[in-house]
Amino acid sequence: MSSKPSIPKGTRDFSPVEVAKRTYIMNTIRSQFQHYGFQPIETPSFENSSTLMGKYGEEGDRLIFKILDSGEYIEKAKLKIEKVNSKEIAYLTILLEEVFIHLKSYIIKSDIIEHNNGPLFLAEFINNRINGVISSSAGIADVNRFENDIVDFFKANALDIGITLYRKNEFFTSDDSFQNFKMEELREFQERLITYLNIKYFHRVPSKALTPQISEKALRYDLTVPFARYVVQHQNDIVFPFKRFQIQPVWRADRPQKGRFREFYQCDADVVGSDSLWQEVEFVQLYDAVFTALKLEGVTIKMNNRKVLSGIAEVIGASDKLIDFTVALDKLDKIGEEGVTKEMLSKGITQEAINKVAPLFSLSGNFGEQLETLQSLLSDSETGKEGIKELLFINDAISNLGLQTATLQLDVTLARGLNYYTGAIFEVAAPEGVKMGSIGGGGRYADLTGIFGLKDMSGVGISFGLDRIALVLEELNLFPEDTTEGVKVFFVNFGDTEASYAMQAIGKLRKAGISAELYPDPVTSNKQMKKQMTYANRRNIPFLVLAGTQEVEDKTFTLKNMAGGTQETVSFDSLLKHLSS
Amino acid sequence: MSSKPSIPKGTRDFSPVEVAKRTYIMNTIRSQFQHYGFQPIETPSFENSSTLMGKYGEEGDRLIFKILDSGEYIEKAKLKIEKVNSKEIAYLTILLEEVFIHLKSYIIKSDIIEHNNGPLFLAEFINNRINGVISSSAGIADVNRFENDIVDFFKANALDIGITLYRKNEFFTSDDSFQNFKMEELREFQERLITYLNIKYFHRVPSKALTPQISEKALRYDLTVPFARYVVQHQNDIVFPFKRFQIQPVWRADRPQKGRFREFYQCDADVVGSDSLWQEVEFVQLYDAVFTALKLEGVTIKMNNRKVLSGIAEVIGASDKLIDFTVALDKLDKIGEEGVTKEMLSKGITQEAINKVAPLFSLSGNFGEQLETLQSLLSDSETGKEGIKELLFINDAISNLGLQTATLQLDVTLARGLNYYTGAIFEVAAPEGVKMGSIGGGGRYADLTGIFGLKDMSGVGISFGLDRIALVLEELNLFPEDTTEGVKVFFVNFGDTEASYAMQAIGKLRKAGISAELYPDPVTSNKQMKKQMTYANRRNIPFLVLAGTQEVEDKTFTLKNMAGGTQETVSFDSLLKHLSS
Repeated sequence: MSSKPSIPKGTRDFSPVEVAKRTYIMNTIRSQFQHYGFQPIETPSFENSSTLMGKYGEEGDRLIFKILDSGEYIEKAKLKIEKVNSKEIAYLTILLEEVFIHLKSYIIKSDIIEHNNGPLFLAEFINNRINGVISSSAGIADVNRFENDIVDFFKANALDIGITLYRKNEFFTSDDSFQNFKMEELREFQERLITYLNIKYFHRVPSKALTPQISEKALRYDLTVPFARYVVQHQNDIVFPFKRFQIQPVWRADRPQKGRFREFYQCDADVVGSDSLWQEVEFVQLYDAVFTALKLEGVTIKMNNRKVLSGIAEVIGASDKLIDFTVALDKLDKIGEEGVTKEMLSKGITQEAINKVAPLFSLSGNFGEQLETLQSLLSDSETGKEGIKELLFINDAISNLGLQTATLQLDVTLARGLNYYTGAIFEVAAPEGVKMGSIGGGGRYADLTGIFGLKDMSGVGISFGLDRIALVLEELNLFPEDTTEGVKVFFVNFGDTEASYAMQAIGKLRKAGISAELYPDPVTSNKQMKKQMTYANRRNIPFLVLAGTQEVEDKTFTLKNMAGGTQETVSFDSLLKHLSS
Repeated sequence: MSSKPSIPKGTRDFSPVEVAKRTYIMNTIRSQFQHYGFQPIETPSFENSSTLMGKYGEEGDRLIFKILDSGEYIEKAKLKIEKVNSKEIAYLTILLEEVFIHLKSYIIKSDIIEHNNGPLFLAEFINNRINGVISSSAGIADVNRFENDIVDFFKANALDIGITLYRKNEFFTSDDSFQNFKMEELREFQERLITYLNIKYFHRVPSKALTPQISEKALRYDLTVPFARYVVQHQNDIVFPFKRFQIQPVWRADRPQKGRFREFYQCDADVVGSDSLWQEVEFVQLYDAVFTALKLEGVTIKMNNRKVLSGIAEVIGASDKLIDFTVALDKLDKIGEEGVTKEMLSKGITQEAINKVAPLFSLSGNFGEQLETLQSLLSDSETGKEGIKELLFINDAISNLGLQTATLQLDVTLARGLNYYTGAIFEVAAPEGVKMGSIGGGGRYADLTGIFGLKDMSGVGISFGLDRIALVLEELNLFPEDTTEGVKVFFVNFGDTEASYAMQAIGKLRKAGISAELYPDPVTSNKQMKKQMTYANRRNIPFLVLAGTQEVEDKTFTLKNMAGGTQETVSFDSLLKHLSS
């Protein structure tokens, strides 16, 4: 192929500089995870489809990348249809025989043998009688679902059958000739019927239904479901509560758009096996620790609790309106109380309900003060009060332990993961002024591993949005200078003798942990000298060593500081000292 | 689902201990790569199929994991057939019109309107005439290949068409009503014909041919082809020679077996853009550096050169027998000269050829000495001598620079990657006594990026076999003790007050880089105390802190050394000091 190669949309190549920056973020997160006692696990990139399908809702199922089975998958898929119906096929053969027997007797009884439009009569007879023949074999459950297909088949083949019989009818005077006929012709029509059904069935199968027949594996869609699968599969080797972290890519067949990719890393930390609220406290601290370590100060850790949302739903007496409600409430700063009320009414939330929760409009003050308002508001909802109690515990613990650079904030409009979170809900917002969606989020599942048959395992966890964090650090210029530092020293290649001398030194430098390299090709002209200089420059190599004939003779090295442009000729030891500092 | 969940065959979950060990190996390799001036890149897990297919031979194509397109891929696949044939479909429509016009004129001319078996007559007319109608449009290449299908279609639909026309025939007296007819009915039959053809064609497609229609992406099969693609795609941003390393998983639909997985990591370092032999020298050193850093001493770095093999092929006058030859020669130690000769003869290598290369049987001594023997043997082969010259340069450089713990060895039987390597060939064998295939390999491609249209880019590189290296380190017990060290100190949870006191200390320890954790649930019984102890034990946490009412009051901590069992009550500062050491 000579057309310029490309990569699939929604995927990315990462250059050395990009890899270095991403590695810096991942290592920072990893080391905090480890300080907090989380242990790394890794799971396969693809799982059995049965593990993933149906865990993310219909939308999710659509966005899961399926892996095509190897080999003759179409054959396999078709065979499946035949296999499934082998018993049915047997019935169909009997049906065909019945049809022919009916026809035979009909032909013999009737006078159509002289009738020159016999075939059409027969065809019409088939079309009229076939329903009867089939219903005669009703009760054969396997066949019933075929009824229409069989009728269609006979309609489509009526004339052929009619003509065949018509041409054959002179033999229909002796029974064994009919046996013959069955042997030969029947087989042909039977063949036709089976193919007909297979094609029909195969083609009636929408992709969604065909997929399980030709794909048994799918790419990981997130890290939570594989984690749940891991916990259940290895439950006997795990000490609970199990604190694990996992930093691996996931894949989603989403429509690619700015900042949304089809392959991206998730960095998750979860605990499973305890419902202690100290874990929520720890996750708030962990967010604070990671973003502080990344020098990303002033992030806001928003918290809410599913039980509080349920409480609000109770109060407004419309659980189904909960999302509309929170979405509208979230716009308070933008469109004001009136606007919000208007939107809520438009969504079918009653004025009465709105009045009940009016206090939410004036929800203000710090975490604790806001909780007090909520308390009076949800005083009638047991669930609501439960949620408030949980938030209270977390807030007390945090105010008492303190955070380094982040702020903890209550946000009753925070309604992410409503279909799985059962308690705490987390979301992290970038520092004010940075236009960016949430850079992290998480929550608690009361029953994380239930989907795989291990009951009563409460799990809570958080996730970091690597790509967005990278964008924020870029925007605020927070990557440490040395993040992208590559090779420290570059040796010009003056020819084999000098190169060999250089390689001696390079070997020692590398053993000392200093990254060093020799230009592979020798300088044979000024032009090439320039080429090597350009190479060192473009790769931002801070030091350059010139070791030509003279240096080799004197056992010295001329060290050039690319930044300052200064250069001096030194012994190896002082070269090592310079470069180690 | 309640059936115990599992993972696809050939894939693996990695426990915290396993991840720690693999991370240790990868970090060691990575840091040596960097000391040697290689820069990391990352490429997407899946590439466009066109990038991968046809690059690994037919076997490779089979073993590439294909990703199923999202959405209604079956529809899409069928549509594709329509698209391909859109021109043909147009002709088919004209054909249909012709048929109907014939029929119309026939109906009007004939007396069948009174004839009560008109439909059958029409049907038979269609069956008789259709071939004529089609052959009338022979020469329309696009249609010819459909002939049989069209005939089949009309046969299958003859009666329907007949009946339809028969019922409609009263309108066939005025032309515009026939226009009408064409407008409505024609469209229906046209629809049917297209579907009919699509179904037929779709079903004629074997999986191998269907795959490109329903899968446009595939999982990376190795790191070399994506690297070549990367180089060509980003050639304008790259400074050549480009030294890159890449540590990422690859996927192969191989039959899983002991030590062979369907997902595994490759650790590659390559240079592209120079044919300097200093690079081969550097890769020998790099192998030595990595295995020394892993404390895996005594590995053998085997080298050969494609040009030497070509030389031998010249001498034995049978390039096609080269593999048979090397395979047989490789058995010298096992089956002796006689055995080897016998095998060669059995493979059709002539006695004369064998005599010519007899010196290879007694190839002995060190790298240099063996080269001398080769030299006389290949004196007539220009290519052979070229290869020897290259090996000589590398051997001289290495003897002169020295290796730390590895041995460089010439192995003329080393014939890996014959279909792509053009110069140096590397392979690394584990230390004697360890039963394990090669733990690394590589070589030079004279034209690495040619497949993507960028000519004359010589590339050379090596790869490390992570999984096998891990097995070897395991067998020789070479993983450093602290590799799998998890949490350093564990705090027993005596209840909220004490927990809050503990969390204060834990926060400070973590800031000091010491991994510490609190048991999430409070001790409310001896049984639970035991449970927390067991937890700390099973996780091999070396230190345990007891901070109950007394300690909280005294602002102290009781530190227990799990190994020694000793414990003492200390201030936070001395706690920190103990744990930092």
